[in-house]
Amino acid sequence: MNIAIVGAGNVAWHLAKALQKVGHTITTVYSRSKAHSEELTKLLTDAVATQSLDFSAIVADVVLIAIPDAALPGITQQIKVKPETIVAHTSGSQPLAVLETIAGANYGVFYPLQTFSKLATIDLEQVPFLIEGNTEATINRLEQLAQTISQKVERVDSDKRKQLHLAAVFACNFTNHLLGISQELLHNAALPTDLLQPLIQETIKKAGMHNPYSVQTGPAVRNDQNVIDEHLRLLQQQPHLQAIYQLLTQSIQATKDNNYSSDQSA
Amino acid sequence: MNIAIVGAGNVAWHLAKALQKVGHTITTVYSRSKAHSEELTKLLTDAVATQSLDFSAIVADVVLIAIPDAALPGITQQIKVKPETIVAHTSGSQPLAVLETIAGANYGVFYPLQTFSKLATIDLEQVPFLIEGNTEATINRLEQLAQTISQKVERVDSDKRKQLHLAAVFACNFTNHLLGISQELLHNAALPTDLLQPLIQETIKKAGMHNPYSVQTGPAVRNDQNVIDEHLRLLQQQPHLQAIYQLLTQSIQATKDNNYSSDQSA
Repeated sequence: MNIAIVGAGNVAWHLAKALQKVGHTITTVYSRSKAHSEELTKLLTDAVATQSLDFSAIVADVVLIAIPDAALPGITQQIKVKPETIVAHTSGSQPLAVLETIAGANYGVFYPLQTFSKLATIDLEQVPFLIEGNTEATINRLEQLAQTISQKVERVDSDKRKQLHLAAVFACNFTNHLLGISQELLHNAALPTDLLQPLIQETIKKAGMHNPYSVQTGPAVRNDQNVIDEHLRLLQQQPHLQAIYQLLTQSIQATKDNNYSSDQSA
Repeated sequence: MNIAIVGAGNVAWHLAKALQKVGHTITTVYSRSKAHSEELTKLLTDAVATQSLDFSAIVADVVLIAIPDAALPGITQQIKVKPETIVAHTSGSQPLAVLETIAGANYGVFYPLQTFSKLATIDLEQVPFLIEGNTEATINRLEQLAQTISQKVERVDSDKRKQLHLAAVFACNFTNHLLGISQELLHNAALPTDLLQPLIQETIKKAGMHNPYSVQTGPAVRNDQNVIDEHLRLLQQQPHLQAIYQLLTQSIQATKDNNYSSDQSA
């Protein structure tokens, strides 16, 4: 397919390279900053950089929008395409409907469920692509496109995608923050900050193979009040960490007797 | 060395097998339940099962205590050893001093910083062993023993080990709970519970290579109040999850402007 990309950041970069690699042609890369889009086009065979969002004279089966969520409503209002072009955004948190203002176009969602940075190589084949569209034909077209670069393509509507995004905040954003707190505690105790890495790896591996609730360990699930009290004492200079410790300890203890389902092993 | 092991659970099982593999002799395995200790001794070449904690007539350079933390004080009061035997516990949360009541013995800590289950094979070579002892000679002896099965042997005193355990509660116990919440949310939305696995893997990998605070993503760090409000609305039937969401969101936002150090990349 011929593909135009709006955006020249991490997502645009990974998608453009992967799509070109399997034989698609990236015709155009839009960025507000010309230098920014040219950084990407010089890595691609046939792409030209543009600062216009009028794609009505450009060869493109699909326009992929890969820009920050906050910029999406403003950008979509300016996009012009031929009627046969599909416009799809790549955001996990934005509904399909954010694109319905684009006059005459078919539109959809083409969401790679992964975190991207330019430095890290990502195996897109293993990345779930969540697809949605305003018509069955649009969904089919975007599914076909996703299947050329990933083995894990799923139809997920906006409501479910929102639930998924919420789950990702707990599993990734909040988890990352706890790992940050942990490193801060190691740092403050003059311990090597990588000391817990093998334990973290094993914890995540185990949580991926079972229902994490069923493999919970630690003082909270053991009701080991002596250790809990001692930990709270160690945190007495950091009341915000005490609050997190107490709330998560309570939540673990409440979950123990309230396991939503026992058939959660993957 | 000749080693006796008190306990026949997961830690005892992994340590006994690894120590025998590199040439040590496990002479004795204690468990309150004879069936339990025999399950382990039948996997070992020279070990006999015992239900007595009197090791004063038994050949053992080291007695390793690998039992639940709560049972440790009660068990240590009953242990009898020859004066030349070192008694060491394997607990992350118990101080060295819990062993000082053992008459006449040298004593120490031999703590493998990992989570063990009988089903999962663990590469002990990569597992940090944290060593402590009542004398320099005891520490040296336990270090030598640990170095035969691990490449990562560190001296860590009881105070620092306590800090480390606290950091591990955040990095592992609490993280596991958040992964459980995430799977519950996916389950409730009828989404595949393994959908987030690639994203989780990448998040953990990234957090292990940088200061996690510096690679934080998501609505909290972006101050994306629309998304935060929408997530809180989705959780309105689960006030305990709303509370966790709010507290961790606040903590992420407070951390952004209060980065304890910028030189934390590992």
